[in-house]
Amino acid sequence: MSEPLFERLTLIGIGLIGSSIARAAKVRGVVRHITICDESAVHLARAEELELGDRYCGDAGEAAEGADLVLLCTPVGVSGALTKRMGAFLKPGAILSDVGSTKATVVGEVRPHVPEGVHFIAGHPLAGTEQSGPDAGFSSLFESRWCILTPDQPDADAAAIAALSRFWEGLGSTVDIMDPDHHDRVLAIVSHLPHLIAYNIVGTADDLETVTKSEVIKYSASGFRDFTRLAASDPTMWRDVCLHNKDAILEMLGRFSEDLAALQRAVRWGDGDQLFDLFTRTRGIRRSIIEAGQETDEPDFGRHHPKD
Amino acid sequence: MSEPLFERLTLIGIGLIGSSIARAAKVRGVVRHITICDESAVHLARAEELELGDRYCGDAGEAAEGADLVLLCTPVGVSGALTKRMGAFLKPGAILSDVGSTKATVVGEVRPHVPEGVHFIAGHPLAGTEQSGPDAGFSSLFESRWCILTPDQPDADAAAIAALSRFWEGLGSTVDIMDPDHHDRVLAIVSHLPHLIAYNIVGTADDLETVTKSEVIKYSASGFRDFTRLAASDPTMWRDVCLHNKDAILEMLGRFSEDLAALQRAVRWGDGDQLFDLFTRTRGIRRSIIEAGQETDEPDFGRHHPKD
Repeated sequence: MSEPLFERLTLIGIGLIGSSIARAAKVRGVVRHITICDESAVHLARAEELELGDRYCGDAGEAAEGADLVLLCTPVGVSGALTKRMGAFLKPGAILSDVGSTKATVVGEVRPHVPEGVHFIAGHPLAGTEQSGPDAGFSSLFESRWCILTPDQPDADAAAIAALSRFWEGLGSTVDIMDPDHHDRVLAIVSHLPHLIAYNIVGTADDLETVTKSEVIKYSASGFRDFTRLAASDPTMWRDVCLHNKDAILEMLGRFSEDLAALQRAVRWGDGDQLFDLFTRTRGIRRSIIEAGQETDEPDFGRHHPKD
Repeated sequence: MSEPLFERLTLIGIGLIGSSIARAAKVRGVVRHITICDESAVHLARAEELELGDRYCGDAGEAAEGADLVLLCTPVGVSGALTKRMGAFLKPGAILSDVGSTKATVVGEVRPHVPEGVHFIAGHPLAGTEQSGPDAGFSSLFESRWCILTPDQPDADAAAIAALSRFWEGLGSTVDIMDPDHHDRVLAIVSHLPHLIAYNIVGTADDLETVTKSEVIKYSASGFRDFTRLAASDPTMWRDVCLHNKDAILEMLGRFSEDLAALQRAVRWGDGDQLFDLFTRTRGIRRSIIEAGQETDEPDFGRHHPKD
């Protein structure tokens, strides 16, 4: 890239996502200068050792001063308080955004603290691993991923939306735009419910008396293992997701539980036809995902590696 | 392998598992002659086209005649009837086994039809993909996998168990032995419950009015996609698993549902501590799986592939 899209980028929070943005922005030359802020002195010192930025500071207000783009890369629970702290330091014309997994409550908490003249456009890059911390990031994390922007005002500045879109495209992502409430319902079904169910089944397995934990681990390739990856995700982030996307999550959990009760009843009464119908219907979505080129068709059932 | 372990192998059913056994047994030279039987004339003709065996016939009795090892590779629902049909044709000293995902009811249905002098030892190779049919098999399917044998009689012939173990080891698997009831409880948690939950969530997503199916597909990499692979497994096989492992599945489903109700309550009441505790506890199992060398630690969060 010949000319950077932004002069000065400030990252508030230098965990998996923040440190991946720092690395990608540097590698791809989309910004000229990066200021890094984290409330953890340990993370901040590590970011400096890894040379992820050009300037490091523990105070969000100071870090935001003079920035053209400020990205909140913290758990969603603290976005409101951080914006309040930064308010007076944000320069007119600056763009403020975030990377949180839920949008409606974050917008509600951040919006009141956004000063006149600053463009706040919430965002959510659909990228991550189950790792966390500044060492976990990598520069290709956002390549071929979606980033959803959720402007919440009808008169949102089109130029600011376009600039923020180009930033994420500069990191390799494809940008989609939707309203915050719809984002939260979509993510509740494609991401939040799958994670909660994964956490739940791993918890259930952990509590069994008749099957040992070592047996669960030994034979985990038979289906269980896929869930353990999701259930190893960052606990703080997921607690905040549950607290901030409560309504959409409860709706999806309610529907899931009703359907599961019907399935359980079919198993109890030996209703083979009902089971067969469900098990047939669900194949369609898999085919559509493969046809959309979002997954390969090759067998990827995990293997174990016996030690002998 | 210099000398085949068995002279004559008969495979009843030539789907994913049966055709993989045929291919592996041929490639690895563990048997000298393979007879293939399938009630579907289409599958049988296809098996012959693919040259998976040495002899093809539609009748199980005829196919079993003279075999040293007979493997039932059919959905578990028909194992009893097939054994009844084969009974008079099985030669003294022959070993009869199966590959079904549930064991206690299969043993109960097969055992009464096993003639004196024939060694019946049920088995379950923990291997598969979501594909089915004779074209779906491949010779490396059983490499580095577990195969669980579940002898149901205290005086089971040790020599026959050893011979059947060597057969599976010859296909690349590691053999474990446990009793049929325990097998069913272990598999209920590591395989059956994960599959039922996956079928259920894909069904729930399919029914939503507020989020379109195309949105679910588009953003499926955020967690949902892992479930679609499990939910694309063979409907007939999974219907039979539910009908044949009812008690263990209902126990696990009951525990899962109770735990999910508690989780739902914590979300509704905003109990962040309870959520955080669960989300922390579940990381341990993932670590154990990685330490056991059964999974890598690398980020494998799926990517989408935008078409532009």
